[in-house]
Amino acid sequence: MNPSSSDATSWTPGRPLRVALLGCGVVGTEVARLLTRDADELAQRVGAPMELVGIAVRRLGRDRDLDVPDELFTTDAAGLVSRGDIDVVIEVIGGIDLARDLILSALEHGASVVTANKALLAEDGATLFEAAHKAERDLYFEAAVAGAIPIVRPLRESLAGDRVQRVLGIVNGTTNFILDAMTTTGQGFSEALDEAQRLGYAEADPTADIEGFDAASKAAILAGLAFHTRVTIGDVHREGITDVSAADVRSADEMGCVVKLLAICERRETPDGPAVSARVHPAMIPRSHPLASVRGAYNAVFVESEAAGELMFYGPGAGGAPTASAVLGDVVSVARNRRSDVFGPGESTHAQLEVLDMGRARTRYHVSIDVDDRAGVLASVAGAFAEYDVSIKTVRQEGSGSDAQLVIVTHEAEDAALSATVASLRGLDMVRDVTSVMRVEGGF
Amino acid sequence: MNPSSSDATSWTPGRPLRVALLGCGVVGTEVARLLTRDADELAQRVGAPMELVGIAVRRLGRDRDLDVPDELFTTDAAGLVSRGDIDVVIEVIGGIDLARDLILSALEHGASVVTANKALLAEDGATLFEAAHKAERDLYFEAAVAGAIPIVRPLRESLAGDRVQRVLGIVNGTTNFILDAMTTTGQGFSEALDEAQRLGYAEADPTADIEGFDAASKAAILAGLAFHTRVTIGDVHREGITDVSAADVRSADEMGCVVKLLAICERRETPDGPAVSARVHPAMIPRSHPLASVRGAYNAVFVESEAAGELMFYGPGAGGAPTASAVLGDVVSVARNRRSDVFGPGESTHAQLEVLDMGRARTRYHVSIDVDDRAGVLASVAGAFAEYDVSIKTVRQEGSGSDAQLVIVTHEAEDAALSATVASLRGLDMVRDVTSVMRVEGGF
Repeated sequence: MNPSSSDATSWTPGRPLRVALLGCGVVGTEVARLLTRDADELAQRVGAPMELVGIAVRRLGRDRDLDVPDELFTTDAAGLVSRGDIDVVIEVIGGIDLARDLILSALEHGASVVTANKALLAEDGATLFEAAHKAERDLYFEAAVAGAIPIVRPLRESLAGDRVQRVLGIVNGTTNFILDAMTTTGQGFSEALDEAQRLGYAEADPTADIEGFDAASKAAILAGLAFHTRVTIGDVHREGITDVSAADVRSADEMGCVVKLLAICERRETPDGPAVSARVHPAMIPRSHPLASVRGAYNAVFVESEAAGELMFYGPGAGGAPTASAVLGDVVSVARNRRSDVFGPGESTHAQLEVLDMGRARTRYHVSIDVDDRAGVLASVAGAFAEYDVSIKTVRQEGSGSDAQLVIVTHEAEDAALSATVASLRGLDMVRDVTSVMRVEGGF
Repeated sequence: MNPSSSDATSWTPGRPLRVALLGCGVVGTEVARLLTRDADELAQRVGAPMELVGIAVRRLGRDRDLDVPDELFTTDAAGLVSRGDIDVVIEVIGGIDLARDLILSALEHGASVVTANKALLAEDGATLFEAAHKAERDLYFEAAVAGAIPIVRPLRESLAGDRVQRVLGIVNGTTNFILDAMTTTGQGFSEALDEAQRLGYAEADPTADIEGFDAASKAAILAGLAFHTRVTIGDVHREGITDVSAADVRSADEMGCVVKLLAICERRETPDGPAVSARVHPAMIPRSHPLASVRGAYNAVFVESEAAGELMFYGPGAGGAPTASAVLGDVVSVARNRRSDVFGPGESTHAQLEVLDMGRARTRYHVSIDVDDRAGVLASVAGAFAEYDVSIKTVRQEGSGSDAQLVIVTHEAEDAALSATVASLRGLDMVRDVTSVMRVEGGF
């Protein structure tokens, strides 16, 4: 913590800390409800009472099932954050441009900010963190990654004396629900998506989830925290789950694996020094891996750290109440800081490691190949792998005659070499089709 | 954070933060190694260099495999902590009296303290926290509970806006290793203990682990953090695992359960208002519970919170490097605070909830009873339960004739009623023996 020298808003004993809420959807409503209901308890924890002084909404007059005075609601979010007497602004409206403007204005006007806005942080966190640093205010965002699961604070503080090697996260509940349903029932992707939509686990437009955009935002944030390097969503390789087939899930099962959409952030030693890789894609992981048993819409983040070893953080990754819990934990922290006119640790980017593109990430492949069942086929398939220095771990032939199939799992190699190998396989005479290619992670 | 007004030790830009280490055993050696090896990286994270200025040891001249100058070692721990120019003292000597004296002296002389000493915190944390508060210094202790797993900071900060209902922890690796071996191999307790000792998972004198003292210290600390109430080890009901038999483990298996030594901290609504229960005992939990798959010497803490829902934190609960990771995370936090002359959140005891004795804890029992196989036996056994208002969930008769056995699982009731029921069963004519009694936890 650093003492703050800004005097735009100084708290003096006796007055409550003023809190403004931007957005009153599912999360905002729950935040407002808990701030109001638990006001006495929260005052004890902060060391000063907090007062909710305004709630910015798009439209007035909705029935919000909240026990707060009508006059708190306003459609003038910009006016609310620039009042100049707000101590803490909570941003849960989402989106990019408006949210950024409001957060920047709040910081300039002396408020600390708590946000759940992963998309904005992953796209343009640098602008926000620099503004917070300049304003000597806090910008906290525990709710932006994996909902209620405390992962930002552990990475930023608990592991601050350690060296994180790898973060593997199931950070999107919608895709985990779909893949889990495919694993459990044998359903295909579309059926499982339909069911997820019917049950409310997937939105009407599920693009952000199933194409991996949401997970990629979180991967950027996690990589930045873990490796003290600025990582944006543009640095994150992204593949969604729309191409995962029931056959892929069955192949995984035969290998003793399950298919998960993983956010993977790794530190890699390269000839040019340490570097970082951040990527989101479906992958097979062994059933014995702690992430394999993360079911339904739950999230989990698995951290491999040099001294701490293997840690896992598990819990609900979304939803109004869980996200509100993470938001309010941050609100208590930044309110304590405002009360004392200090601020907590800001963005940590001193390492500035190179962010590798996907071709230079190291991983393993599981490849299923329909082949002609004749002499020499294995030699020529193996030759394609050797051509790119990709070492084969296991080969299994299944079926025979016109059903012959080779299932190959490689050792670790650079992704570029693996994809060149697959392209080369596709050009081979004896290869009828490369039916499935999936990365294998988690120490299989 | 609060700005500190003490001027015993004020950091000024340009000088390094001075760190003193008390104890150079397995954990201390690793702390010293990382502090030295990663000095540049840690300086970036703290915002100022840290310098290890002294290491207090019991005896000089041991070969410690550490790349630090000989003159740092001293046997005068008291002199080291009272030099008056130390910013951070790390206490990893363990034990009660000497550690307490040194921590108090360190705080009085202007240092913040990082400790891994669960026994001292559970016995007399109040004295230490009051001294830290008075000195306006930090007392951090992430390493005291569950080794490398970040659980103190999440409870103290991430969940500060939520209401924790229950904490279930596997917080002792030795007993988890033994129970896991019993589950996997069918071994009895002594065999499994022997193996754990042979493999280095249990100490030559395993009392603190197998009798539950270590877990009880951690339960006291967790309960205090979770419920904002002062809880000492004297408040914690404690039963070890020495009476757990191979038959208990088999019974659990037949129920779809495993046996774990749990640290359980619960908030309970009583007619007199909310109260707290803290206890350590072996219990059956369903195999589907996330804690059931915590294998070997790993630790995990499962938290049920009103808004966040169910969270789990998993990782290595002991060992030099993992504990050093937790210690160094705290060192970075308190060093950042010293640099800015502020201090973080201290002890939170405003709730001061009543701590219930074991008789008033609510739980369920699994009871195996050898009975005479004749008419009326079930009626009279059921009568004993009814007498104390304990409701039966399931009854199963096994065997017949002289092998007849009743296996009964109850609904939740106060522990006093459950144990009175068992005493009453033992007095029944038709009951030959109550062969096993074990609590059932985790939502079976």
